[in-house]
Amino acid sequence: MRKSYVRASLALLISAQLIFAATATRAQNAAPQTTPAAALEGFTPADSAVERALEDRFRAIPKPESAREHLRQLTKEPHVAGTREDYQTALYVRDRMREYGISAELKEYQVLLPYPKAPTVLELVAPRRERLSLQEAAIPEDPTSASRKIIPLFNGYSASGDVTAPLVYVNYGLPEDYAALKKLNVDPKGKIVIARYGRSFRGVKARVAEEHGAAGVIIYSDPADDGYAKGDVYPKGPWRPETSGQRGSVQYLFIHPGDPLTPGAPAVPGTPRLTREQATNLPKLPVQPISYGDARKLLEPLRGQVRPAGFQGGLPFAYHVGGTQDVRVHLKTDMEFKTTTIWNVVGRVEGGEERDRWIVLGNHRDAWTFGAVDPNSGTTAMLELARGFGELTRQGWKPRRTIVLCSWDAEEQGLIGSTEWAEENAVELKEKAVAYLNMDAAVSGANFGASSVPSMWKLIRAAARDVRDPKTGKSVYQAWQDHVREDRPEAELTDESGTDEKIAEARIAALGSGSDYTPFLQHLGVPSLDMGFGGDYGVYHSAYDSFAWMSKFGDPQFVYHVAAAQIWGTVAMRLADASALPFDYADYADQIRDFVNETVKTARRRKLADSFDSQALLDVVSELGGQANRTKVMQTDLLAQIEHSKVSADDTHPRSIARLRKINDSLLAAERALTDARGLTGRPWYTHQIYAPGFYTGYAAQPLPDLRQAIEARNATNAREAARRIAEAIRRAAQVLKDGREG
Amino acid sequence: MRKSYVRASLALLISAQLIFAATATRAQNAAPQTTPAAALEGFTPADSAVERALEDRFRAIPKPESAREHLRQLTKEPHVAGTREDYQTALYVRDRMREYGISAELKEYQVLLPYPKAPTVLELVAPRRERLSLQEAAIPEDPTSASRKIIPLFNGYSASGDVTAPLVYVNYGLPEDYAALKKLNVDPKGKIVIARYGRSFRGVKARVAEEHGAAGVIIYSDPADDGYAKGDVYPKGPWRPETSGQRGSVQYLFIHPGDPLTPGAPAVPGTPRLTREQATNLPKLPVQPISYGDARKLLEPLRGQVRPAGFQGGLPFAYHVGGTQDVRVHLKTDMEFKTTTIWNVVGRVEGGEERDRWIVLGNHRDAWTFGAVDPNSGTTAMLELARGFGELTRQGWKPRRTIVLCSWDAEEQGLIGSTEWAEENAVELKEKAVAYLNMDAAVSGANFGASSVPSMWKLIRAAARDVRDPKTGKSVYQAWQDHVREDRPEAELTDESGTDEKIAEARIAALGSGSDYTPFLQHLGVPSLDMGFGGDYGVYHSAYDSFAWMSKFGDPQFVYHVAAAQIWGTVAMRLADASALPFDYADYADQIRDFVNETVKTARRRKLADSFDSQALLDVVSELGGQANRTKVMQTDLLAQIEHSKVSADDTHPRSIARLRKINDSLLAAERALTDARGLTGRPWYTHQIYAPGFYTGYAAQPLPDLRQAIEARNATNAREAARRIAEAIRRAAQVLKDGREG
Repeated sequence: MRKSYVRASLALLISAQLIFAATATRAQNAAPQTTPAAALEGFTPADSAVERALEDRFRAIPKPESAREHLRQLTKEPHVAGTREDYQTALYVRDRMREYGISAELKEYQVLLPYPKAPTVLELVAPRRERLSLQEAAIPEDPTSASRKIIPLFNGYSASGDVTAPLVYVNYGLPEDYAALKKLNVDPKGKIVIARYGRSFRGVKARVAEEHGAAGVIIYSDPADDGYAKGDVYPKGPWRPETSGQRGSVQYLFIHPGDPLTPGAPAVPGTPRLTREQATNLPKLPVQPISYGDARKLLEPLRGQVRPAGFQGGLPFAYHVGGTQDVRVHLKTDMEFKTTTIWNVVGRVEGGEERDRWIVLGNHRDAWTFGAVDPNSGTTAMLELARGFGELTRQGWKPRRTIVLCSWDAEEQGLIGSTEWAEENAVELKEKAVAYLNMDAAVSGANFGASSVPSMWKLIRAAARDVRDPKTGKSVYQAWQDHVREDRPEAELTDESGTDEKIAEARIAALGSGSDYTPFLQHLGVPSLDMGFGGDYGVYHSAYDSFAWMSKFGDPQFVYHVAAAQIWGTVAMRLADASALPFDYADYADQIRDFVNETVKTARRRKLADSFDSQALLDVVSELGGQANRTKVMQTDLLAQIEHSKVSADDTHPRSIARLRKINDSLLAAERALTDARGLTGRPWYTHQIYAPGFYTGYAAQPLPDLRQAIEARNATNAREAARRIAEAIRRAAQVLKDGREG
Repeated sequence: MRKSYVRASLALLISAQLIFAATATRAQNAAPQTTPAAALEGFTPADSAVERALEDRFRAIPKPESAREHLRQLTKEPHVAGTREDYQTALYVRDRMREYGISAELKEYQVLLPYPKAPTVLELVAPRRERLSLQEAAIPEDPTSASRKIIPLFNGYSASGDVTAPLVYVNYGLPEDYAALKKLNVDPKGKIVIARYGRSFRGVKARVAEEHGAAGVIIYSDPADDGYAKGDVYPKGPWRPETSGQRGSVQYLFIHPGDPLTPGAPAVPGTPRLTREQATNLPKLPVQPISYGDARKLLEPLRGQVRPAGFQGGLPFAYHVGGTQDVRVHLKTDMEFKTTTIWNVVGRVEGGEERDRWIVLGNHRDAWTFGAVDPNSGTTAMLELARGFGELTRQGWKPRRTIVLCSWDAEEQGLIGSTEWAEENAVELKEKAVAYLNMDAAVSGANFGASSVPSMWKLIRAAARDVRDPKTGKSVYQAWQDHVREDRPEAELTDESGTDEKIAEARIAALGSGSDYTPFLQHLGVPSLDMGFGGDYGVYHSAYDSFAWMSKFGDPQFVYHVAAAQIWGTVAMRLADASALPFDYADYADQIRDFVNETVKTARRRKLADSFDSQALLDVVSELGGQANRTKVMQTDLLAQIEHSKVSADDTHPRSIARLRKINDSLLAAERALTDARGLTGRPWYTHQIYAPGFYTGYAAQPLPDLRQAIEARNATNAREAARRIAEAIRRAAQVLKDGREG
């Protein structure tokens, strides 16, 4: 579902300017100081050598030709969740895993899914009558684009509706865009609004339109953001062509994701269900996506004021805001909401010493159309990874901890397969889950990117150092740094002192939402990451997200599919095998400190600096950092004792192992401690106090969500309460780390 | 010639980030502390009351209906310099001045002017053969646009040439654009380059292309910068329509402006002339401007790499850099270079006590087409001002100093009328000129803007406070502040401490080039300013810069023409009448300090910080600031003595007046002292050590020009020498102020 890591990183940079150079540099240098040279973090030197050899064997297994064949099979037909073709892909994934020697089962849920019942009618009524095609053209070079099974352009969970009204252009449909319109006395109430994709999750666009009384919403892909202004369009280039639109869910997943009728509970027989009217995460107005070819017909005749600053897009005329009777539009959507069976596939590699500690890997499998990039490049990576793990187990490998491989269904509609599974297994996951490792669109190009909780930054960077970048032959880590530097102007790379010592490492962004880590991190408090290789990807959620596109533009040699399997598997193996979990809560504390400082600046600008106790927050952050450092020191000592006891055959070994396991459990529990069962303001499903999708951004993370939201709403009372709860959560996490070292 | 004050301000902000909040605030508050309340700066309280009454009478005289009639007369026909129609406008201006009671004469020069001899041929040769029209369409709503006297689209001083070559798209044609192309292994040598207008003076585009070995240059108006992306196009809106191109000179005026054959000397009989081959400010390759309608036909078929970041414009396809044989172009220009008579008009209002001190006002009169905005809105303002001054003199006013009103010719080709006059009268001007007040395109909208030497910032702001903004009824000053604030985001308006105390005043930009102040300030060292009211002006140098455009968009009520006359006249009267010249060299010192600090930062980034003695520079700047403050104190004291002596009839009056005049002369001489007769590196005509047009920007100022240029070229030896000369100049200025107070 999520489009681009680069985009998420940028959003983060803009919204919070979080990760500063000094932190990153310190982080980079810390590893050699705290562990013996050449040892992997969390391993004794001896175990490290064994692990490295194992990982080398693993990384030699995934192959381009095998990856290519998976993708070809998975993308033969459109496979929207709940369809027969979707079921076929579930069987394909289950059977491949079994073939590779990994136990795998289907896991079903019955959830409410949306499908278009009749073709949407969208027509210009004035200044002339013209019905728009809403069809993505068949492209000869891309054989599957002519398939009659491709689902029409629609937005998942759009309401059914039939409205005729004047049209208002609302730019990206953000609250500030409506504020700009209000200054011009343009009222969207009762009108149909047309917004361009970008800058916020499409569900947010629907929600904000609804809050402003709109009668309907049209969302289009503007060529300035997603079309020819980015580069040559398909099939000449990888970018979105004139007739292409972006499907996608408009579920209000910032309130809660998953089945709309069973929030917080699994959609299985016996669970009581809400009615559709009672659901809180569904829009009440019709929403329809269109192409820029169609949008041009609506936008060009608009009158009213010429757009405010920032409203102009890439179509070749001056954009007007409309809102007058000059342009009237008829929008009729006819949706069917069906309780439908969906199929997750869950595979397991059983662990040895700690089989009740789980490393959970997840990728969704359902697609809006063929899903070559989104999500089946990730499914392909998972299958190649499974092939590798199966081969290693055949050779005798048994990981210390259990590895769970999840192929989710119905992610596109609202992270449904993952959410239902996480809700069903909440108690067990809270106890057992070490980490959740997500890969959605694993490959749309060659540029590595990642988002994660800060405790996993070092782990991701270390793994990226050990995987080869296919194009450059350098490490993925080095290629990633080089790419990020290329995009920055000179001034940012050298500071005023003329040195470049302070240059940051490539940033690892915060987790917002838009993929399946959300139930794990933000509902349950499981340390999570999301990663993949991005590129010039202009066919997102279109009929052209196809095997042909991937073969021509995304990864013609399928080598990045291999690299994706390698890095995902490397991270998983380290977490599965390490005696000491390599989670760094000092990085977490540094990151939270930056969030707090950034928030204080915003609060000062809004004259709300006194509304909450920022010093108390900074104090508990320091406490967390201190406890984290003491825990790291103890982990190092215990690993050294274990190494020594093996040599000297003394009797400290079992006791040291037991103490490490207790510390490991505290490292899981620390993330859980950052959740608060009372949930966030207005959205109790979200419990994490540090990370949540922004209410008005949707995809991008809003760090310290309740505090930021209170400050944005200029609500001093809420800000005080939010800061208090955040401080409590951080204090709990610090205490958990402390307790973990005792005994 | 110059398009927009707002643009110049932005360029300045970007290039130097000069005027900081604290300075501005201090400057704003300084006046009330150093002069008696309500007194105008430089006047005794008694004189101030007289002056205010006079100014009020003056400002009541300019009238919209009279302004409208001037503009109608001036814009009836195209009046390119050296044509019969140009001569008619000279007579119109001279005769109106005489009619108003102001003596006025024509002043002729014989200069080398360029005209198109035969229509330019521009045709696509591959991938298909198609000749481009190069015609601006007649628009029914704009009757003069059908005139057959409109000069074809051409660039003044383009060479004649006939080349057929592959086409390369070079973005704005800046040095960094060529550097980006070099990275892609695209070599413009022997090719025709196509650059878009903007970010640099068009002569710079020609020069940089020439330096890179291009065979020809096409310059077009991209709709992202100058077309529909800015707003509705003419005649629906004020912006550039599809067939419209931008004429304009490509003289290398950053080397020297004026007649190419008589640099540094007046183009009058008896002056020896260079041959055209000897001239140093003329391009050697053909250069042709085209519309975006025509440009689309050249750009759309381009192949080669998809543009680097920043190269994409507003046409509806992905821009490629070309440079391959896929697109070949034939360009044939046929120019005639004629030694031609041009006509300045010079009017005089003789001064009384100090008739040998001159306040020089200038506006050019020649236009590429009808010149409604550029320049005849300014000519109109000058005529209304002349009507006002004539009326005041009839009522008995005789200014203390002489006011000279100049209507320049051939500015469009290269500031020729003003440069020849300044060169002819150099000795007298160096002795007598108090200030040069320029107004080129006085009105294209309602947004006031100004550029000047820092010593006149307070004067401009004070005058703006005393003129009413026609649209809002507030002062021009207040409307100016409000407009600038509107364009800035919240974050810039409130600092992190949550207060807004440090918000800067609307900035007054540095003088670069592109209008007639250049010979006065940058060749002779006369304190200069340039100002006007800007707006949505999309018909610059096109067939649509017409009376119809002005009547529909620029100033339908002609009230801003009146406001322009009022503010210009107000500044002139204050300078003409003040006993103590209100020039503030403390502001100048603060500004230079910011320039130095900014330059030091750049030098550090380039590891050239040790190449020059920045502390020595900062020391002389402090010395200048200190002398300036002492001079201000003495002016205040002397004004108080004069006021007192009038009351007490003591005998100090004549002595105080004499001392003030000596100080006044030192304030003129201080600006002269900032020039260095040796000139700038590679361009001896430019003598000013603080201000010059940038070598690679052309319009925008490059402060501390030789030092900045040396640092950009990474030349440590030149940087040291430049810093030394700049420090010498500032020290001279400080000494001049000091000497002025003695005796």
